[in-house]
Amino acid sequence: MHEKWMNTAINLAKAAQGQTSPNPAVGSVVVKNGRVVGMGAHLKPGEAHAEVHALTMAGDLAEGATIYVTLEPCSHHGKTPPCADLIIEKKLRKVVIGSVDPNPKVAGDGIKKLKNAGIEVMTGVCKDETDQLNEYFFYAINEKKPFITLKTAMSLDGKTASNSGHSKWITGPEARVDVHRDRHLHDAILVGVNTVIKDDPSLTVRLIEGGISPIRVVLDTNLSIPANAGLLHDSAAPVFIICGKNADVKKEEYLNNLNGVTVNKLNTEAVDIKDVLTSLFNSDIHSVYVEGGSEVHASFIQARAVNRMVTYIAPKMITGRLAKGVVGGSGIETMEDAFELKIDSVEMVGTDMKVIATPKGDE
Amino acid sequence: MHEKWMNTAINLAKAAQGQTSPNPAVGSVVVKNGRVVGMGAHLKPGEAHAEVHALTMAGDLAEGATIYVTLEPCSHHGKTPPCADLIIEKKLRKVVIGSVDPNPKVAGDGIKKLKNAGIEVMTGVCKDETDQLNEYFFYAINEKKPFITLKTAMSLDGKTASNSGHSKWITGPEARVDVHRDRHLHDAILVGVNTVIKDDPSLTVRLIEGGISPIRVVLDTNLSIPANAGLLHDSAAPVFIICGKNADVKKEEYLNNLNGVTVNKLNTEAVDIKDVLTSLFNSDIHSVYVEGGSEVHASFIQARAVNRMVTYIAPKMITGRLAKGVVGGSGIETMEDAFELKIDSVEMVGTDMKVIATPKGDE
Repeated sequence: MHEKWMNTAINLAKAAQGQTSPNPAVGSVVVKNGRVVGMGAHLKPGEAHAEVHALTMAGDLAEGATIYVTLEPCSHHGKTPPCADLIIEKKLRKVVIGSVDPNPKVAGDGIKKLKNAGIEVMTGVCKDETDQLNEYFFYAINEKKPFITLKTAMSLDGKTASNSGHSKWITGPEARVDVHRDRHLHDAILVGVNTVIKDDPSLTVRLIEGGISPIRVVLDTNLSIPANAGLLHDSAAPVFIICGKNADVKKEEYLNNLNGVTVNKLNTEAVDIKDVLTSLFNSDIHSVYVEGGSEVHASFIQARAVNRMVTYIAPKMITGRLAKGVVGGSGIETMEDAFELKIDSVEMVGTDMKVIATPKGDE
Repeated sequence: MHEKWMNTAINLAKAAQGQTSPNPAVGSVVVKNGRVVGMGAHLKPGEAHAEVHALTMAGDLAEGATIYVTLEPCSHHGKTPPCADLIIEKKLRKVVIGSVDPNPKVAGDGIKKLKNAGIEVMTGVCKDETDQLNEYFFYAINEKKPFITLKTAMSLDGKTASNSGHSKWITGPEARVDVHRDRHLHDAILVGVNTVIKDDPSLTVRLIEGGISPIRVVLDTNLSIPANAGLLHDSAAPVFIICGKNADVKKEEYLNNLNGVTVNKLNTEAVDIKDVLTSLFNSDIHSVYVEGGSEVHASFIQARAVNRMVTYIAPKMITGRLAKGVVGGSGIETMEDAFELKIDSVEMVGTDMKVIATPKGDE
C-alpha cells in the first residue's frame, strides 16, 4: 500500500522534472482512511514545496492523515517556511518518506523534528525510484560538482561530418526531439567555442512543449566567440562563457555588457575541466549536458569527468579518411588507456540507436 | 502439422550449415502414419543429398510415406543421381517442399517430374525459414555474385586503434567467438593487403568447435604481401590473392607455387570491387565476410557492394584526432551521399553491442 501512494507521489514529481532546479523535484500525497485527500508537487524554485500544496488541498482533513513525500521534508527556513513545522502544525499522524535529504549537513533533521513531535516516520519507501528522480541533484550535493552527461551523435562509422564538413543531418528528427527532452532535464548545455563558430547554434529547447532552455555554457579559452553569435543576442536563456586568464579584457567587457551574458575568467591560462565543474557548481548548476564538439568531448573524457554517455548512432556510413570523427583530443597510447564504459541500455529512437552507458566502476 | 515436420527438416539443415558450400544446406524428414521413419541432411559437397539419407533410414517404410524437404529435390545428374528419381522409385505418396530451386534454369523441374509420376506435391511450406537457410546461396545463384557481409569492430567513438596503432583488443572475447561463428558460415573471408602487413592474421576459424575455415581472400593490387606472411604457409585453408594487371610477375609466380595459394590477376591496373565479385563467384564463392581494414571497408561501401553490415561496438572511448577511424576512403561531399542503412537488430554479445543493418532499399 505504501508503495502505491509513494508511486503516485513519484509521478507528481516527475511531471515537474526539469522545472525545479536548483531545487529537487518532489511529489507528495496526503492519504486519510485509504483515500487521497491532497496531492502536490514542487513546481518552481522559490515557490511552495510539494508538501505545502498537498496539505493546502487536504485542508482540515490533514489532521490524523498520512503524508507521503518523495524527499525528507525540510527543517530549515529557506525561501519558504520549514515543511516539517507545517506537518506538525497540521497534526498529521504519519510521514512516509522516499529519500533522506542528501545534504550531509541537514540529512535527518526534518525526520528528527517530526519524531520529536510524536509523529510516526517511515523512510526508504521506493528509495531507488525517489533517488533516481533527483539523480543529478543528489550527485551534485554529495560530490560538490555537477552531474555530466556527455552526448554524442555519429554515423555507424563514427563520423560527424563529411569531408567537406557537411553535417546536416546525421540523426533523424526523432533523435533531435529526444535531445531537446534531455536538454530540458539538465541545468546547463555546454559546448566549445568552435561549435559556436561553426554552427552558430541557439542551444535552446524548442522541439518539446513547455521545454525550459537551460543555461548555455561556452568554453572559450581566448574569448574568440563571434561578437554576433546568435546565442549572445537572443535572450532565450542565460549564457556563461568560461575563459582563461589571458583572454582579451575588451572582449570580456563587451560580452559582460550583453543582456544575460556572463564571462567567468579562470585563474589559469588554459580552461581546465576541473575548474569548469567547480565554477558551474558554484553557480548552482547541478547537471550539464555536454554537446561537443569533438575536442570538448575529448577534454571531458580525458579528465574522466563523465557520469553518463549518451550516444546517438545513425544507420549510415559517411566514410572518408579525412571526415571528422566524433571525439578528437590528443589520444592515447595503448588500449589499456581507453575510457571504459558499461552499456546500460540501447533503444531505437526513430531510425537511430540511442546508447546509454556509464563509466566502468561507476555502475 | 506440415509446419512441424518442416521445422524438423529445417533444424536438420541448420546443424550442417556452413559445411555444405558451394551446395545449399538442406534437411529432410520422412513421415508415415504420423511417425518419423527417416531423417537426413546434406552434410558435405559431393556427398549424398538430404533426401538420400532420409530415405535410406526409412528403408521399406518409405513406400506410401510423405517426405518433407527444405529445398526442391534435384532432377539432374550431378555428383549424385537425381533425388526426384529416387523418390519416385521408393514410391512415396507425397512430397512437401519449402523453397523451390532458386536456379531459374532448373526451377520446378524436380516438382514437374514428381507430379508426372503421380506423386502429390506441396510447396512453400515455411518458405521464409527455408529461404533464410540458404540466403547466401539463393542470392548468389540469382544475382551471379556473392552475398557480402561487411563486418566492422570499433569503439563507441568509431575508432579501431590508438594513436600509436595499438588495437588489441577493441572488443571482448565473446565478440571474437561470434566473429569466428560468422566466418564459418561464409565461403570466404576477405581482407586488404595492409591488414596482412600490419596484423599478419591467420583468418581461420579457431574459436568454435568443428569450425571450417573459409577460403581467405586478399586484395593486393601490387602483390605487396610479405613473402613470409603466416597465412601463405599455414595450409589452414586456401588463399586467393587478387591483384591488378601490373603486379610483379616474379612475385606472382612465387605465390602461385605455394601450396594452396592462387593469384588471380585482373585485366585492369586497379582492383575494382565489381571484378572481385565476379572473380569470386566464378570460383564458386557464394558469400564473403569482409573484415577490413578501413580502406577495404570504404571500397565496398563506395561500390555499394554490401548486403549486410555487422558492426561490433565496444563500450569504450579511444579518443584522438589522429586515431584510426573504422572506415577510410576518399569520403563524400554532403550527407545525401552517405550510404544509408536500416537497423535490423541490436544485441549484446558479452559487453559489446552487435548491430546488424541492411542497405536501405534492400530491406
